[in-house]
Amino acid sequence: MLKNPAAKYRPFTPVHVTDPTFARTWPDQVIARPPIWMSTDLRDGNQALFEPMDAERKMRMFKTLVAIGFKEIEVAFPSASQTDFDFVRELIEGGHIPDDVTIEVLTQARDHLIRRTFESLRGARRAIVHLYNATAPNFRRIVFDTDQAGVKAIAIEHARLIRDCAATQPDTEWVFQYSPEVFTGTELDFAREVCDAVTEVWQPTPERKCIINLPATVEMGTPNYYADQIEWMHTRLARRDSIILSVHPHNDRGCAVAAAELAVMAGADRVEGCLFGNGERTGNVDVVTLALNLYSQGVDPGLDFSRINDVARTVEHCTQLPIHPRHPYVGDLVFTAFSGSHQDAIKKGLAVQQADAIWEVPYLPIDPADVGRTYDSIIRVNSQSGKGGIAYLLETEVGLVMPRRLQVEFSGAVQRITDATGGEMTASALWQVFSREYLEATAPVRYVGHHLFEAAQERQGIALTVDIGGATRELRGEGNGPIDATVDALRQAGFDAAVQHYEEHSLGKGADARAVAYVEMTVPGRPGATFGVGVHGNIITASVLAVVSGINRSQAGAAVPAAAQASAP
Amino acid sequence: MLKNPAAKYRPFTPVHVTDPTFARTWPDQVIARPPIWMSTDLRDGNQALFEPMDAERKMRMFKTLVAIGFKEIEVAFPSASQTDFDFVRELIEGGHIPDDVTIEVLTQARDHLIRRTFESLRGARRAIVHLYNATAPNFRRIVFDTDQAGVKAIAIEHARLIRDCAATQPDTEWVFQYSPEVFTGTELDFAREVCDAVTEVWQPTPERKCIINLPATVEMGTPNYYADQIEWMHTRLARRDSIILSVHPHNDRGCAVAAAELAVMAGADRVEGCLFGNGERTGNVDVVTLALNLYSQGVDPGLDFSRINDVARTVEHCTQLPIHPRHPYVGDLVFTAFSGSHQDAIKKGLAVQQADAIWEVPYLPIDPADVGRTYDSIIRVNSQSGKGGIAYLLETEVGLVMPRRLQVEFSGAVQRITDATGGEMTASALWQVFSREYLEATAPVRYVGHHLFEAAQERQGIALTVDIGGATRELRGEGNGPIDATVDALRQAGFDAAVQHYEEHSLGKGADARAVAYVEMTVPGRPGATFGVGVHGNIITASVLAVVSGINRSQAGAAVPAAAQASAP
Repeated sequence: MLKNPAAKYRPFTPVHVTDPTFARTWPDQVIARPPIWMSTDLRDGNQALFEPMDAERKMRMFKTLVAIGFKEIEVAFPSASQTDFDFVRELIEGGHIPDDVTIEVLTQARDHLIRRTFESLRGARRAIVHLYNATAPNFRRIVFDTDQAGVKAIAIEHARLIRDCAATQPDTEWVFQYSPEVFTGTELDFAREVCDAVTEVWQPTPERKCIINLPATVEMGTPNYYADQIEWMHTRLARRDSIILSVHPHNDRGCAVAAAELAVMAGADRVEGCLFGNGERTGNVDVVTLALNLYSQGVDPGLDFSRINDVARTVEHCTQLPIHPRHPYVGDLVFTAFSGSHQDAIKKGLAVQQADAIWEVPYLPIDPADVGRTYDSIIRVNSQSGKGGIAYLLETEVGLVMPRRLQVEFSGAVQRITDATGGEMTASALWQVFSREYLEATAPVRYVGHHLFEAAQERQGIALTVDIGGATRELRGEGNGPIDATVDALRQAGFDAAVQHYEEHSLGKGADARAVAYVEMTVPGRPGATFGVGVHGNIITASVLAVVSGINRSQAGAAVPAAAQASAP
Repeated sequence: MLKNPAAKYRPFTPVHVTDPTFARTWPDQVIARPPIWMSTDLRDGNQALFEPMDAERKMRMFKTLVAIGFKEIEVAFPSASQTDFDFVRELIEGGHIPDDVTIEVLTQARDHLIRRTFESLRGARRAIVHLYNATAPNFRRIVFDTDQAGVKAIAIEHARLIRDCAATQPDTEWVFQYSPEVFTGTELDFAREVCDAVTEVWQPTPERKCIINLPATVEMGTPNYYADQIEWMHTRLARRDSIILSVHPHNDRGCAVAAAELAVMAGADRVEGCLFGNGERTGNVDVVTLALNLYSQGVDPGLDFSRINDVARTVEHCTQLPIHPRHPYVGDLVFTAFSGSHQDAIKKGLAVQQADAIWEVPYLPIDPADVGRTYDSIIRVNSQSGKGGIAYLLETEVGLVMPRRLQVEFSGAVQRITDATGGEMTASALWQVFSREYLEATAPVRYVGHHLFEAAQERQGIALTVDIGGATRELRGEGNGPIDATVDALRQAGFDAAVQHYEEHSLGKGADARAVAYVEMTVPGRPGATFGVGVHGNIITASVLAVVSGINRSQAGAAVPAAAQASAP
């Protein structure tokens, strides 16, 4: 059983209890324009990865963020590692920063780190230097062994150092940012006191503002509590007209998106977050969801997610983390409907929806086409029962568990058939389609058989017997293993391809177990990737079959290669 | 670019604009006790799966929900499919429903479906019959081709039928529930009008309440808007003292948890949701996060997630969907810290945390031990740089990309070493540990070599040369493929094991490509599963090595089997 929480956890104290004079107004607000967006994918997102991005991935992420339309991008913690330092230099020296984009870097409140940070920024046109120190009671006591006065002195001292360092590099347009780390766990009046002390040093003006960022380093209460905290600060900070008020929500309680929205209603001008909610532990607030939430309310978010799948694949490549299939707007399943009544309502809605009218299709909060998605993933092969997705039926028939991306590819093939016939598909018809599409793809190459042999230098050899255009041929190939050798053998016949991803798993258990192999292949000169699938009792044969399947499917519509023709009888 | 949203999407109209007399009070509330929880994992969750649960999975889910402490469980849509109908019968006839648990079933407002629904419930001790029809304008116009009066008449007519059907089965204690589907998109006064008409039929009393459930079928606004809608209904519904007011949030805008929390503050008595947020499209509200959010505020949620990993693995098994690594409380990464400063603060916090004191460890919103988790997954092999997770370093060294569950298993091994030595681990030390743990596990069985042969009936044969206890032996095995054959061969030497999961992928590309194979194995009489890993240029050899590795690792500490000893020289 769960322990008694009352003895172990302290509830938050509402702002109106802390300060009975607090007059809340945010619940009457509606967000009518987007906040300033700041991406911290390359800093807060990157530091929370199993595998931090290498230089290539960082640059790819940076260019993606620029293309989406971010004008402020936190690119590094340059004093924390040489990799981060070098990346800032590369951005500046390589001329990668557009004129309307400002880079931001983070630094702790320590002298040598601040000096190193300014070193990294030499030659920047414009830059935000982001200073932080933790202000919450448990951090003061446990981590820093100091008191309120000590924490405030740290902030003031290093705010001064930043001001002075900036003065020595006058060719850069400087913007200063301060975060009282763990703001959500800090006494409100003390947080205000420290922020006011910092802006007293920096002397911002309405023409030349500084940024005060109030992070929910750990999310500690219901999102209305964060909104109250933000509105309290918004209405009580000194020099408010010279401050850009920023928020930085984390998602420990699963409410980061809500906290950001309510905080903007409460007076925040700016939101820091990451694409699809990457970041420490449960992640930073997801900027994509925030932007598209605005979009669905008729408000232009100022960020372009019209090709959201491309952004998703780039982020998965850079972070090596998956995006959940139910993630708002982008997940593989969010524009699907499985139940018959949902499918029926959507179908009726799409039928009457006019191109230039207000979107009113049931169950779909936005038009998938607006984010570059389609209805391919709506699976309606057996809507009579309200159930019967493709994957379910194929599992029932053959025990096949398809990777989700293959499901989506195959779903498109099924959709084309159901659209053409107008009817539902039975389970056996579906299996015929799958077999025809993947397992019986025998042109231009039909697999006949193979034998493995041990080639020189411990390489794997294969003697692959195939039928091409009616002629039986034995192709020989070598490689590190049977897949590589099969690709090599087929190349001898003029079929050039590369395996991007290979995956194989068992089907069932015991004496009847077979294996299914999936290969995702690319062909020179053809866009996109194509799946090939092989099923066999032997994992080697299954993988050979998968390669042949992938070659055939990616050749669909192409002329038979000269090398293959030359050998035909 | 994104299209101009103002021409396509209509913003929500705030409740205080619709009704200027509305006086909002929820922002001053704090949740001091849990709502009534209703799990719809077996209904709303199940209907949104690629592969709906079979009977075994449904029963396993039901028993899990009961063990967690749910007292109300929506188990089926019995009139929609025979599978669902049969499951309800099995629950009742098999005596699977504890005395303090009430099952619930959903039905559309159609005569034959309602009659079929009552048929499914014959003999139930107590049951909730959940009636719904869509009330929103676009559904009225597009889907049902009717008006407000028509929709209201449908609700009244079928509420009557339910009342009458219930009267014919008097041995069951009936609870009635009504949902105006797409409540969030329905005119508030019309939603109230329909709900009042239904309760007029049902005549609930304070002693015998009915349930009015107000679903965010599609999430349509910021979560405060939903809270306003709920409070408006809460303060204006007729017979309020005879109603259990229920909410059913979906997550289209990523705010379902927040919407549920604010709705409870606004007067809702009951929350419908799913474990880890399964359900249509973006899912239902995640009841686990809601419960543990309460827990972290010192409020006993009345649901037991003290062994959250067990619940997570069961749900993944039943739904065949992954839980995201950053999912609050349960994700693989949420009790990790990658940055050096976070690791340092947590270390200091744990050092001073007293067992019976209020939890104050930095960056960890709750004590992982409370949910049966540990710090095994905190990776601190190279905190000097604030980076350098295990996976990153191993990728750098050998290009190895470990499955996350293997990362966690291996992380535990690393943690034991760092705990013992107190020091940081260099990349090369880490690679030594990995190699020793997985690749050089050569006792009791050391791989020497193998040859494949084609056995009878197209089966795969293997001649496996191994060294056991200093004696070289050739073991022969057969199977559907090399892994199966290898397991068979080793069984001849007394090592009995089963492969639960096999996965293999390429390492790098081109001439230097190798393959890494992972097998997750179980051994009779030993709890849990163990990974074996093999790396080789040939995918077959890699998989054979992985099986040998898994056998050796799962034998750690066990006596050498008699069959192996008997053959030793």
